[in-house]
Amino acid sequence: MSGPTARLASINIGGSATAIATATAAAAASAQAYPSPLNRCSSASAPNTNTDNGPRGDFGLIGLAVMGQNLILNAADHGATVVAFNRTVSKVDHFLANEAKGKSIIGAHSIEEFVSKLKKPRRMMLLVMAGKPVDDFIETLLPFCEKGDIIIDGGNSHFPDTNRRAKYLATKGIRFVGTGVSGGEEGARYGPSLMPGGNEEAWPYIKDIFQSIAAKSDGEPCCEWVGDGGAGHYVKMVHNGIEYGDMQLICEAYDIMKRGLGMPNKEIGDVLTKWNKGVLDSFLIEITRDIMYFNDDDGTPLVEKILDSAGQKGTGKWTAINALDLGMPVTLIAEAVLARCLSSVKGERTKASEILTYVGRQNKFDGNKEQFLDDLEQALYASKIISYAQGFMLMQEAAKEYGWKLNKPSIALMWRGGCIIRSVFLKDITAAYRDNPDLENLLFSEFFNKAIHKAQPGWRDVVAKAALLGIPTPAFSTALSWFDGYRTKDLPANLLQAQRDYFGAHTFKIKPEFANDKYKVGDNIHVNWTGRGGNVSASTYQA
Amino acid sequence: MSGPTARLASINIGGSATAIATATAAAAASAQAYPSPLNRCSSASAPNTNTDNGPRGDFGLIGLAVMGQNLILNAADHGATVVAFNRTVSKVDHFLANEAKGKSIIGAHSIEEFVSKLKKPRRMMLLVMAGKPVDDFIETLLPFCEKGDIIIDGGNSHFPDTNRRAKYLATKGIRFVGTGVSGGEEGARYGPSLMPGGNEEAWPYIKDIFQSIAAKSDGEPCCEWVGDGGAGHYVKMVHNGIEYGDMQLICEAYDIMKRGLGMPNKEIGDVLTKWNKGVLDSFLIEITRDIMYFNDDDGTPLVEKILDSAGQKGTGKWTAINALDLGMPVTLIAEAVLARCLSSVKGERTKASEILTYVGRQNKFDGNKEQFLDDLEQALYASKIISYAQGFMLMQEAAKEYGWKLNKPSIALMWRGGCIIRSVFLKDITAAYRDNPDLENLLFSEFFNKAIHKAQPGWRDVVAKAALLGIPTPAFSTALSWFDGYRTKDLPANLLQAQRDYFGAHTFKIKPEFANDKYKVGDNIHVNWTGRGGNVSASTYQA
Repeated sequence: MSGPTARLASINIGGSATAIATATAAAAASAQAYPSPLNRCSSASAPNTNTDNGPRGDFGLIGLAVMGQNLILNAADHGATVVAFNRTVSKVDHFLANEAKGKSIIGAHSIEEFVSKLKKPRRMMLLVMAGKPVDDFIETLLPFCEKGDIIIDGGNSHFPDTNRRAKYLATKGIRFVGTGVSGGEEGARYGPSLMPGGNEEAWPYIKDIFQSIAAKSDGEPCCEWVGDGGAGHYVKMVHNGIEYGDMQLICEAYDIMKRGLGMPNKEIGDVLTKWNKGVLDSFLIEITRDIMYFNDDDGTPLVEKILDSAGQKGTGKWTAINALDLGMPVTLIAEAVLARCLSSVKGERTKASEILTYVGRQNKFDGNKEQFLDDLEQALYASKIISYAQGFMLMQEAAKEYGWKLNKPSIALMWRGGCIIRSVFLKDITAAYRDNPDLENLLFSEFFNKAIHKAQPGWRDVVAKAALLGIPTPAFSTALSWFDGYRTKDLPANLLQAQRDYFGAHTFKIKPEFANDKYKVGDNIHVNWTGRGGNVSASTYQA
Repeated sequence: MSGPTARLASINIGGSATAIATATAAAAASAQAYPSPLNRCSSASAPNTNTDNGPRGDFGLIGLAVMGQNLILNAADHGATVVAFNRTVSKVDHFLANEAKGKSIIGAHSIEEFVSKLKKPRRMMLLVMAGKPVDDFIETLLPFCEKGDIIIDGGNSHFPDTNRRAKYLATKGIRFVGTGVSGGEEGARYGPSLMPGGNEEAWPYIKDIFQSIAAKSDGEPCCEWVGDGGAGHYVKMVHNGIEYGDMQLICEAYDIMKRGLGMPNKEIGDVLTKWNKGVLDSFLIEITRDIMYFNDDDGTPLVEKILDSAGQKGTGKWTAINALDLGMPVTLIAEAVLARCLSSVKGERTKASEILTYVGRQNKFDGNKEQFLDDLEQALYASKIISYAQGFMLMQEAAKEYGWKLNKPSIALMWRGGCIIRSVFLKDITAAYRDNPDLENLLFSEFFNKAIHKAQPGWRDVVAKAALLGIPTPAFSTALSWFDGYRTKDLPANLLQAQRDYFGAHTFKIKPEFANDKYKVGDNIHVNWTGRGGNVSASTYQA
């Protein structure tokens, strides 16, 4: 799979009339309930009509860091006239004089000017730091907006914030969209994955431009409407969590090859080149291959000089916390986030490395290297399958919890191209969910069922060997443990429930196959395990 | 180690004067700044003096579920006159007519009566459901309280709530204490572990009664002042998280013996009996042994009939979320919580068990069973060491983050007896922290350094064999991966940072040993890995 390339097929995104014409009938009807221009929110002056002498901007973007600049260039390449603004106004001029030169990009030097240069209903996207800056810009924009205008937050906002903002802006007659944008700087420039959610009335007005700038996979745009409120940012959050997982898995494979097998970077790069032609074919394998081959001025691999201390303050952490909140066993992302935490205590690790040494019965790899590398490929593949199965479990539960209708095939399609986790693998996921949109779990599809069974023997050997050799594999291991737990009808949690009843009178339930007159299905049963304790069930104490 | 037994040595807890006399000089001075009685909060009537005809109660307790009843009986056994109240008043009468009969226990049938029967400053403990009921009872109590009175929340409240309540009640002149109470119903009855924190002015007034009813370990009470605000509930939260971990580890050992080695429950019980005389000597091993031996009426082990579906809505989840929030790699508790989540999707697992089958190269245990059981003991021990090391790392970071002074030897001492995780092991932790209270990590102590090195070979073999055999070991595995990561100076997070810089221009830092004029220590470095991307560093996009 090659990196993202420019796709410049221009489509008509000129005016809202066109946009409505291409939207679905139902959505269009809804959209037409807000003919523009409507009541003004304030008395701030702005042109009222979209004449030739009036505003020319199809789309406005605030925030000229790398992602914002590249999205603007992308939209301009696809025929849109884009209005650009940045709080530090010198950035606007610099951008216009350089990257934006000769393109259909207009600069604005104030919010008022920015708004005034946009056709109505205005489509205004924020690409600023998540958190307070988003609220601040919304408040700054509001006095210049009219009912029916569309504000789009393209940052990595936390989905509860997006829920809140969508509700708030609906009361002002403003249609709010929170959209996930993935693909890094190149993705933004030549085709990102876009995951928009929020006020669905906005969709007909932004669909064409969004789908024109989005990545395409087999001709289909990697952008579809996700759902209400914060659904778009939620899906982006899970995407990022999965990205954390994919990256951690690749790091573990690299570590096993480097320290377990003693392979030099060039040789690791060759293995990745091979893997990138098979089931692991993906953007992240591709760039890791490039990184393995990338030498510093002194001819040695640059990656080996990079500090091994990673941050984790954002979306990965949110995904793990949300999984805990919803009670979903999303172990791989959690381990990936915690692995970053462990990496960040570099000082303590350095000290530990001096006093905690390896002891084991097999301190050198003594197997067949070729076989083991094949096993490693399967271990990485199987672990990825588990991670995505967990991620879709989480989104399924979130949809239930938050009342969203999430379209699983669309989500897989959106991740197929453009974004950081794009891969051939996501084609297979899309196919599995298209084949059966109600698929309870990815592992229940024929394709992934076969894949995971094929991968198992090698996966088990890799996890076992890494444990014996002393190479940490938190993500490989948790994936395997999860798989072995998931496929187990009777887990040892029966003992856990017995313990809780023993020490805290927390009660337990009986397995249906053992129910009788004494122990009925669904009853909360307490047993006096010692003959000493009381007979009162616990109600204030939660162990 | 035997179960908790009654320790009835009575001590004088009669009045506040005595309490002050036994407190430290500094704390006493602080306490005396509030001579009682002080200004009334309201005009509600209550006696003003502690005469023979006046209020007799030394201690009041609200909430007569199992924990509350047992704490009252415990306090009465230690010479306190206890006033009991419950919202459903019939429970009070039932309690007085049965369990409390003939003891120094007084019933109250209204909040007003409850308060009026207590000596001043009143010591009033709530043992009600965490959350709103605590706030409700506080509001109900307030009109009858005087400045200087003490309200104690003994439930499993979330520490931010305790922070909030301590602040709020301080404005009313009420001294608020949030205390962890552990030990289940037997612990509450015969000696719990108590972890009080909050308004330190209260400590001299409650120290004697708390330390008298608390468990004793080698003559020392398992109760000390923890710290300001929510510190007591925080430590209890981490205690519970560790409890989740300990229970999960035992479940994994049981599963390996049961399914991996095919051992019947009686034989597993025999192994636990042996383990309970060694390094694993603990309450949880002891009760698991009892559970293994406990047969149902039909002569088969009851535990095998218990539904393997466990809840996880409380403190374990909070610990994992707090660890993520503070960026601390507390992997074992996280896996233990997520293992409960996996257990809870029993229906899906049952379906999965029919279509996801084991495939591997070694489907039967073929080693030396005796050796393997020794290895298993070491694996459990080593994993426990890791879990406690992680837990203390977390508390250390929390103390920094929240401005608490936590006394690590005291915390270990509080957990040594009385509570669910009590063990010989915690004696060794207490000793390690007494030897060096500033110990950066438990693994840096000589004792645990030796222990973990001794345990390693067996631990590795257990994790490897479980992976090969298809028995899930999320907690054993994550502990080993964490240990192997922690003792590694150069983790593969260097690659992760390279990937982030490649796709998102997130920049990286250089390892000090590779710094030069081009790459300086601490600089944020961006490299154009492809020769295609821009030169702008990302600032709005967080991967």
